[in-house]
Amino acid sequence: MKDGFVLLPHYLRKLIQRALEEDVGPGDATTAAVLRVGQTGRAVTLAKAGIVVAGIDVFREVFLAVDPEIVVTVCRDNGEEAGNGDILAEISGRLASILMAERVALNFLQRMCGIATATSKYVAEVKGTKARILDTRKTAPGLRLLDKLAVRTGGGGNHRFGLYHGILVKDNHIAAAGGIASAVALIREGVSYMQKVEVEVNSIEGVEEALRAGADIVMLDNMSVSEMKKAVSLVGGRIPLEASGNITLTTVREIAETGVDFISVGALTHSVIAADISLKVE
Amino acid sequence: MKDGFVLLPHYLRKLIQRALEEDVGPGDATTAAVLRVGQTGRAVTLAKAGIVVAGIDVFREVFLAVDPEIVVTVCRDNGEEAGNGDILAEISGRLASILMAERVALNFLQRMCGIATATSKYVAEVKGTKARILDTRKTAPGLRLLDKLAVRTGGGGNHRFGLYHGILVKDNHIAAAGGIASAVALIREGVSYMQKVEVEVNSIEGVEEALRAGADIVMLDNMSVSEMKKAVSLVGGRIPLEASGNITLTTVREIAETGVDFISVGALTHSVIAADISLKVE
Amino acid sequence: MKDGFVLLPHYLRKLIQRALEEDVGPGDATTAAVLRVGQTGRAVTLAKAGIVVAGIDVFREVFLAVDPEIVVTVCRDNGEEAGNGDILAEISGRLASILMAERVALNFLQRMCGIATATSKYVAEVKGTKARILDTRKTAPGLRLLDKLAVRTGGGGNHRFGLYHGILVKDNHIAAAGGIASAVALIREGVSYMQKVEVEVNSIEGVEEALRAGADIVMLDNMSVSEMKKAVSLVGGRIPLEASGNITLTTVREIAETGVDFISVGALTHSVIAADISLKVE
Amino acid sequence: MKDGFVLLPHYLRKLIQRALEEDVGPGDATTAAVLRVGQTGRAVTLAKAGIVVAGIDVFREVFLAVDPEIVVTVCRDNGEEAGNGDILAEISGRLASILMAERVALNFLQRMCGIATATSKYVAEVKGTKARILDTRKTAPGLRLLDKLAVRTGGGGNHRFGLYHGILVKDNHIAAAGGIASAVALIREGVSYMQKVEVEVNSIEGVEEALRAGADIVMLDNMSVSEMKKAVSLVGGRIPLEASGNITLTTVREIAETGVDFISVGALTHSVIAADISLKVE
Amino acid sequence: MKDGFVLLPHYLRKLIQRALEEDVGPGDATTAAVLRVGQTGRAVTLAKAGIVVAGIDVFREVFLAVDPEIVVTVCRDNGEEAGNGDILAEISGRLASILMAERVALNFLQRMCGIATATSKYVAEVKGTKARILDTRKTAPGLRLLDKLAVRTGGGGNHRFGLYHGILVKDNHIAAAGGIASAVALIREGVSYMQKVEVEVNSIEGVEEALRAGADIVMLDNMSVSEMKKAVSLVGGRIPLEASGNITLTTVREIAETGVDFISVGALTHSVIAADISLKVE
Amino acid sequence: MKDGFVLLPHYLRKLIQRALEEDVGPGDATTAAVLRVGQTGRAVTLAKAGIVVAGIDVFREVFLAVDPEIVVTVCRDNGEEAGNGDILAEISGRLASILMAERVALNFLQRMCGIATATSKYVAEVKGTKARILDTRKTAPGLRLLDKLAVRTGGGGNHRFGLYHGILVKDNHIAAAGGIASAVALIREGVSYMQKVEVEVNSIEGVEEALRAGADIVMLDNMSVSEMKKAVSLVGGRIPLEASGNITLTTVREIAETGVDFISVGALTHSVIAADISLKVE
Repeated sequence: MKDGFVLLPHYLRKLIQRALEEDVGPGDATTAAVLRVGQTGRAVTLAKAGIVVAGIDVFREVFLAVDPEIVVTVCRDNGEEAGNGDILAEISGRLASILMAERVALNFLQRMCGIATATSKYVAEVKGTKARILDTRKTAPGLRLLDKLAVRTGGGGNHRFGLYHGILVKDNHIAAAGGIASAVALIREGVSYMQKVEVEVNSIEGVEEALRAGADIVMLDNMSVSEMKKAVSLVGGRIPLEASGNITLTTVREIAETGVDFISVGALTHSVIAADISLKVE
Repeated sequence: MKDGFVLLPHYLRKLIQRALEEDVGPGDATTAAVLRVGQTGRAVTLAKAGIVVAGIDVFREVFLAVDPEIVVTVCRDNGEEAGNGDILAEISGRLASILMAERVALNFLQRMCGIATATSKYVAEVKGTKARILDTRKTAPGLRLLDKLAVRTGGGGNHRFGLYHGILVKDNHIAAAGGIASAVALIREGVSYMQKVEVEVNSIEGVEEALRAGADIVMLDNMSVSEMKKAVSLVGGRIPLEASGNITLTTVREIAETGVDFISVGALTHSVIAADISLKVE
Repeated sequence: MKDGFVLLPHYLRKLIQRALEEDVGPGDATTAAVLRVGQTGRAVTLAKAGIVVAGIDVFREVFLAVDPEIVVTVCRDNGEEAGNGDILAEISGRLASILMAERVALNFLQRMCGIATATSKYVAEVKGTKARILDTRKTAPGLRLLDKLAVRTGGGGNHRFGLYHGILVKDNHIAAAGGIASAVALIREGVSYMQKVEVEVNSIEGVEEALRAGADIVMLDNMSVSEMKKAVSLVGGRIPLEASGNITLTTVREIAETGVDFISVGALTHSVIAADISLKVE
Repeated sequence: MKDGFVLLPHYLRKLIQRALEEDVGPGDATTAAVLRVGQTGRAVTLAKAGIVVAGIDVFREVFLAVDPEIVVTVCRDNGEEAGNGDILAEISGRLASILMAERVALNFLQRMCGIATATSKYVAEVKGTKARILDTRKTAPGLRLLDKLAVRTGGGGNHRFGLYHGILVKDNHIAAAGGIASAVALIREGVSYMQKVEVEVNSIEGVEEALRAGADIVMLDNMSVSEMKKAVSLVGGRIPLEASGNITLTTVREIAETGVDFISVGALTHSVIAADISLKVE
Repeated sequence: MKDGFVLLPHYLRKLIQRALEEDVGPGDATTAAVLRVGQTGRAVTLAKAGIVVAGIDVFREVFLAVDPEIVVTVCRDNGEEAGNGDILAEISGRLASILMAERVALNFLQRMCGIATATSKYVAEVKGTKARILDTRKTAPGLRLLDKLAVRTGGGGNHRFGLYHGILVKDNHIAAAGGIASAVALIREGVSYMQKVEVEVNSIEGVEEALRAGADIVMLDNMSVSEMKKAVSLVGGRIPLEASGNITLTTVREIAETGVDFISVGALTHSVIAADISLKVE
Repeated sequence: MKDGFVLLPHYLRKLIQRALEEDVGPGDATTAAVLRVGQTGRAVTLAKAGIVVAGIDVFREVFLAVDPEIVVTVCRDNGEEAGNGDILAEISGRLASILMAERVALNFLQRMCGIATATSKYVAEVKGTKARILDTRKTAPGLRLLDKLAVRTGGGGNHRFGLYHGILVKDNHIAAAGGIASAVALIREGVSYMQKVEVEVNSIEGVEEALRAGADIVMLDNMSVSEMKKAVSLVGGRIPLEASGNITLTTVREIAETGVDFISVGALTHSVIAADISLKVE
């Protein structure tokens, strides 16, 4: 909980089933040929570098989807850290089932831990500032809920889950409406009674215009640190400001120190470095 | 063609529909409020760095899934290179449809171009050697076919599509069978009449054992460059050798020069850096 | 457009296909036995009472799903009114296809027109006040998007599309959190940076508490007209107020005149009276 | 049982899963923010008016679909009556799961109880006559089986489940065939050896023609009470007669007293008034 | 038409898509390697023995599902006969698409032609009697509608499409109800106003009992020819009789000559001999 | 295990659910009317002829899909033989559930036992030779995995699971490539590093050409027994040979004695004779 969302059980099952069909298909000929019928075994999943754990419940469900009799004991829960050699989970049951589930289970886990670990680095980097790290909609197609869950597990927050989920007026909308003021006016009249209106700008003039138009949040897109400082000073805390645009671990601290409220980082989910994790049969 | 596989039209459609449902859900309130009914427009998709194009057909299909009347003109085809500022495709039609499809279309395209671009760098790095760059099963759950298609587009080759697709005897199988010889024997008797048998080893002794056991291919897992050279010399071209295990752009040349036939690189698909591509409405 | 959402084409297709499978199953034995092979015909769809048209596009798609060669000409578009005897659409093509699609097409159309017509009556009733009529999440399972689309077509607005879509703190949340103040505080800290926070109250004290807690909107649940007037006066326009709870055509005007901003009416979608519409083959 | 049909478990599960995805989507942000992790609770579902219970098993399955550890104890079973304040079911378990399932569970239950309650009123109204109340194919798209199950629970009977399910010769078929005689003849020759043939007529002449043609059942469509009496007298019990067409609670008794065997009422399912039921967390 | 049913377009598409995914999976490596990009060609489908054509439209749709630009020209339509060497259809377009669709298209066609051809032999065998050949519910799981369509194409009729589709009282029902009379009575009271009631018996006594109980049809299960003659004589045309139980081409004529109305043959669909048909690229 | 593949649990569930929906649809009216609510019973499944059991686990899952409380005790496991009158499984639980699942469960079981039994006859016929009996891709659409599983259960081996699964160069590929040599060369260069290359030929010249081209396996398509002997002698054990083309129980021994390694028999799966099995309620 405190996740802002909880996956419906059948939603997760469908994701896992599709991934298994993709990988296992008609079956694992190698394993079938080599193992004795009913041969059981134990395996451990190990971190091979420092990581933040995310998706360990998804990892567990993959084994259960292949064989409901497998027992998966979680040793490090979501949100916990693990170092090189730490055991994340122990798995026991039919060896053929373990080997059949292994790759898919790791593919989910390594991606989610990768996202959580990267997120936690950004979060650590801005510590002491008021800036909160957010994700974007730049996720792997079909995996958005898991990607965003991993961001939260890593200490970040979730921006919109989709187009349906809040109002974000971007450059193309502003151009189509003939300016920020008219864009915001159209939205106020159209759909926004229950939604905050965020406006994307790329200059101090844009910030001023958005303020005048009554924006609830302003996104500073690809603006320089000095411009962002000016924006923070101009807004004076009346509404939150979000920094956005090619932000990296190197630049995030400096941006946070401008006083913005949110920093959204596309790379958290569009350029995931898989966490180094392996499964060893004992 | 020459892709080793072609996506069935409805398979791709389902992938795209799931991604759209995830992102669009009940609809794009911002766009709906701001645009005039029926307002049309044009947009271009631009590379913002040097890339190899992959997935431009997937990109196109996303727009058509949202609105069959949108016209997408491809300017750079799959496999072609593009530099900063180059137009990859032009899109025209209802502006609301363009904005609704934009993010999902880019999410597919940026991932696939990212994979193809990374693959092409590995391929370039081993140029002049006989080594061929291969992918692995370490793909994003649900996206394996697209991930592997992008690897081929970038000049790499595809290793197994799934467990069902060929025989790869790994350490856990060997342990379960009580040695390489007995593992291979079990497979020969069980299932392999139409499949080659690849055996994973991590030492020269393993290579010798695999050769004696009649392996069709040997995978050298996490072996040192000098060991790999010995393995190449030992095998003397009788069967192909594949190098595997945490191979990077920095180490791949050296490994290729050992004389191995294949080099499989998990990072091609498990740690994708999204290509920098944007869509601009004109 | 201006709908706040647009149905993805394949989403609508899936709804229609499920409804057709449910009704047609292995086929229409009566029609098959009676009609000559290839016999074509024309039919008209008529209003048999005064209605507001909604879902005429869904109606059309049902025929195309059964037979892509049927031609459906829409005579009254969504949002238009029609009186007894007015033709809503003309259909021509294979008679067997027309008869096979008829019932499903009408089931969609009659429900959506029923919703739009009822909504328009509530909207007319509050004319001249600032109150806007909203729907709720009390929709037919599986038909939420169509139900809400019909409300908009009838001149109403859409409240939340689902639990994921905005923050509404209800009595059970307040009880669990130990009061309005702590509930709102938990949300502010947890998830709400991009979402407005609506708080449901059932007394003037609740309104005061919600105001103090910083609610963005207050929902007056099942309060009397005189209490609502007090609430409007107390709030003084600082935030919007929403009236809710068993509101009927008889009571809605009185409530609107209290000065509330929104009135949400569950009956719009949970107790739909199907519009009287028939299809006649000529 | 005695229901004429039983829902396959996975069929019901799919209906519920779709409804949950529609309502819950990526999750319930409000609940997640406000509740303590693992906080449990109890809730009761109460009738707020006199109703006939239907769908209480569906209601229960919704909670289990969200969280298999929730315990739902049914207090009033399908087919039983309940009055204002009567508890229909008790629910205990994780509070977050209860709140997440609440709306969808109620949407199913209120619709089904609404249908059963209305049906029971029609059934009571015709008590003492031989007429049996039937439903039609005018159901909410996607919910036909539940709608028809609720009709039976309320004491009614089910007419055709779909076009595939029996032979009903309507005006359009008769016109296409050139008369009742030739329509019935075509069916006898074509498909009807295991199916009864029902013919829809709108005049005494039609009844005579249908009798001569060998119809197994005749549907009197929108005929006056006096005409129906004549039809009953004319047929003299040789075959069953069904009255149909805009029949209401006000007119149904009079029609039943004409001596018809069946009365089909579209409003039972096309114009459902949701039963007044609420869920209270204790 | 005259088929008693017509497949919904999307129903057939789903069947074909599943079959293609099963056969093509990630693609046809052989074809992709050997063909030139865009290489086109022509192929013909030939009967290699005397057959009745069925499923030629399904065959055509398989090619279109792989590649909408393929052109399939049907030369022998469903229901027509073809002899060894006769061309059933011509296919032209991308050669890779033709080869990719070939096996799935033939698997559908050969099964359906096999069913139609066998059915036509039974139909021919009973020519001149009044007996009509029917199928059963003994079909390949997932292919019932196609199996039954093929039976009709071959000149047979369709018995029930499923359990939902008519009333058939079998031995187990009779035992559970405590006799034929009480079983039929329970049904009359329960569900049968629109359905005929067929009763399965295995003796002359059973026939008498069923007649007395008011059965609409009687099925003579595994009775001898002489018993069937007695049954026909006993019933004297008052209701139809159906012969059933391990009926073969050798025995069917004799059974038809007993005067029964229907003969149902499980082997038509449970033991299909694939028609000999091949596809040749020119 | 040793099956070369194991069905994923949810894959089997989906197959069964589709088959049940097809057969049961809205429910079994006969059973519902006749049985007492909650009436339980026991049934046995009996072989009525000598068979090899296959699919008994699928049979069991069908009952559980209808009613998880049914108990199915397997008496003869997959791969075992059973004679006329032998009990294959006992079923106990709600009688309505047993009757509802009966036909679908038998349809799966009779097909799979039919395939296994036929396969075992071919295997027995070639006993003492080195030839192994293989299946083909000529399976019932949608049932390939079950069909191939049944072949293995009957003692046969599995040829390719689909186009994606190995390289088989057929006449059309050879024609397109301009000869065997160039076809094989294209494949070697294109995709085959992990796959064996099988080449189909229909003459001794073809065998020679395939050998020269470096084929890994040669398929002798529709060649005479004397030609096959020549081919075996020519190849001299260097690579395996597969006989193919209209092979029957009558001809298979003679072909096996030519010394070929594999004999693939399309009829195993394209022309299945359902095993004679019945279910009796006690």
